[in-house]
Amino acid sequence: MKFIIDANGGDNSPSEIVKGALEALKTVDCEICLIGIEEDINKELEKYSYNAEKVSVVNCTESITCEEAPARAVRRKKDSSIVKGITMVKEEEGDVFISAGSSGAVLVGATLILGRIKGISRPALASVYPILGSEPSLLVDAGANADCRVENLVDFAIMGSVYMEKVLGRINPRVGLVNNGAEEEKGSELTKKAYQALKETPLNFIGNVESREVPDGVCDVIVTDGFTGNALLKLTEGLAKHIMKLLVDKFTADARSKIGALALKPKLYEVKDEFDYSEYGGAPILGVKGGVIKIHGSSDANAVKNAIIKAVPFVEKKVVRTIEKAIENIE
Amino acid sequence: MKFIIDANGGDNSPSEIVKGALEALKTVDCEICLIGIEEDINKELEKYSYNAEKVSVVNCTESITCEEAPARAVRRKKDSSIVKGITMVKEEEGDVFISAGSSGAVLVGATLILGRIKGISRPALASVYPILGSEPSLLVDAGANADCRVENLVDFAIMGSVYMEKVLGRINPRVGLVNNGAEEEKGSELTKKAYQALKETPLNFIGNVESREVPDGVCDVIVTDGFTGNALLKLTEGLAKHIMKLLVDKFTADARSKIGALALKPKLYEVKDEFDYSEYGGAPILGVKGGVIKIHGSSDANAVKNAIIKAVPFVEKKVVRTIEKAIENIE
Repeated sequence: MKFIIDANGGDNSPSEIVKGALEALKTVDCEICLIGIEEDINKELEKYSYNAEKVSVVNCTESITCEEAPARAVRRKKDSSIVKGITMVKEEEGDVFISAGSSGAVLVGATLILGRIKGISRPALASVYPILGSEPSLLVDAGANADCRVENLVDFAIMGSVYMEKVLGRINPRVGLVNNGAEEEKGSELTKKAYQALKETPLNFIGNVESREVPDGVCDVIVTDGFTGNALLKLTEGLAKHIMKLLVDKFTADARSKIGALALKPKLYEVKDEFDYSEYGGAPILGVKGGVIKIHGSSDANAVKNAIIKAVPFVEKKVVRTIEKAIENIE
Repeated sequence: MKFIIDANGGDNSPSEIVKGALEALKTVDCEICLIGIEEDINKELEKYSYNAEKVSVVNCTESITCEEAPARAVRRKKDSSIVKGITMVKEEEGDVFISAGSSGAVLVGATLILGRIKGISRPALASVYPILGSEPSLLVDAGANADCRVENLVDFAIMGSVYMEKVLGRINPRVGLVNNGAEEEKGSELTKKAYQALKETPLNFIGNVESREVPDGVCDVIVTDGFTGNALLKLTEGLAKHIMKLLVDKFTADARSKIGALALKPKLYEVKDEFDYSEYGGAPILGVKGGVIKIHGSSDANAVKNAIIKAVPFVEKKVVRTIEKAIENIE
């Protein structure tokens, strides 16, 4: 198994990227290819001891920034880590490409270079959604497609179910459609039609879920358009951070509280950790003919390490092939 | 000033509704008209002492449930509290109608009976969005219109600004558009166009806001379509509840934590209270020619009392007339 790691994207590259990749190598039997500015990567590699047979470096001379228009950047910058890395996956020189770089460019690159799985109209970003005190759900689409049609939502549900079952090990995952009411007749034009279409699939569709219930883990696969999915994911991140910050402020406001806070510190950290995306691995782009995983732009070594570890079943369980089969069967 | 209170809607009517209305009477110089099943209301009224000159009761013989199709229910059930109450506002027998009943019926009733303000294509629900440790923002649309066009979002921004300034006293309120990226060119088809349209208004438009920033209070008026608004509001409610519950569970899991939790109890309650919607008053339907305020279906006496108190500036500052003028000026 070989992972191609983008060492020229995100806020902490190449230092944290290289560090995380080498840490993963301690627990996963795999090869790592680091792609980026060779000189900088080598400087980082020198800091560690590792099995040199398992690590290779590929140089690139161009960079794609988050400010660039993704499609244009992917078409022009052939020698960027994103374009070269995804091309290596296409040419079977690696199993999965992992990047903390521009989400738009990774998505467009994956779609243009690898191509879509037959029957999938729009690839989607599948992100783990943390459920406090329990196993996470999976949110599809987490932001790849701001405007969706009914068939896109059905594809998201199918791909999400396959990923949930194969990679996250959830049997017969419950699929819920994010909606503004629980009843079948509630919703926007899109969700009303999507409800009917999802009912016709062989999936374990449990109906509409209101976003109020999402944090309780009422379903395993949370299906929604990319605009709403992005809003839910970011609000969860922002609100959790805000609540935890406020609690810490209040808990350290006076002497009595400080004593209490000291006793509760481990528990507070437990809750904080549950929201820590770096623990959950990256977000795969589902629906393209190859493994591409996006990690947060601010990923540290721990996030990189976990993204690699959690990507192992993606390869082992042949997620791409399984989605292809699932789509064939349904059609 | 006279408030028409729906005493035949919501989970706790008429008992909590009557109790809350009488409590408001102690602090607000106004008249209260309770509309519902006269016999039941009178039974509740007997439990309290109050100034009988300020309280009247109107009987109704029909009820609209949340399960009914709103438009059909409003057209048929002329003797329901919702239809009668809104009609009283139209006929100037009261200033504001407040209901914990079916949101759909209240919205449709307000639109059909009172009519839309000239230039407003779609009335919207404006809900206070709690900002921990600070003054709340206002979310428009909080769920009235699942599918929106650009002009609807512009109307929401104008109406929200007027309400924020007149009722909540925020000078020159900052208007933010919920979007999946901060940059001008980001977004769905709808939000990209809405951004350009909002730029042309004389409002204090600060651009796109990502939902991650919403809990920090980055803007005073949060503009979005009703589907997304509903999702944001409900997720906030659900996630806050979930986090607080988990904290309490963890804080009482062992002896050491219990001691800490005891010291922090007042602080925990402070945070919990900030999410308590009953403190913030109800959600007005903006864009109709009269005062109609929706309160949560599970409202207790405290929520009813606060809805009345917070509705006073709605009447005093002539919000309906001010919106009419704002729309005229912009057009």
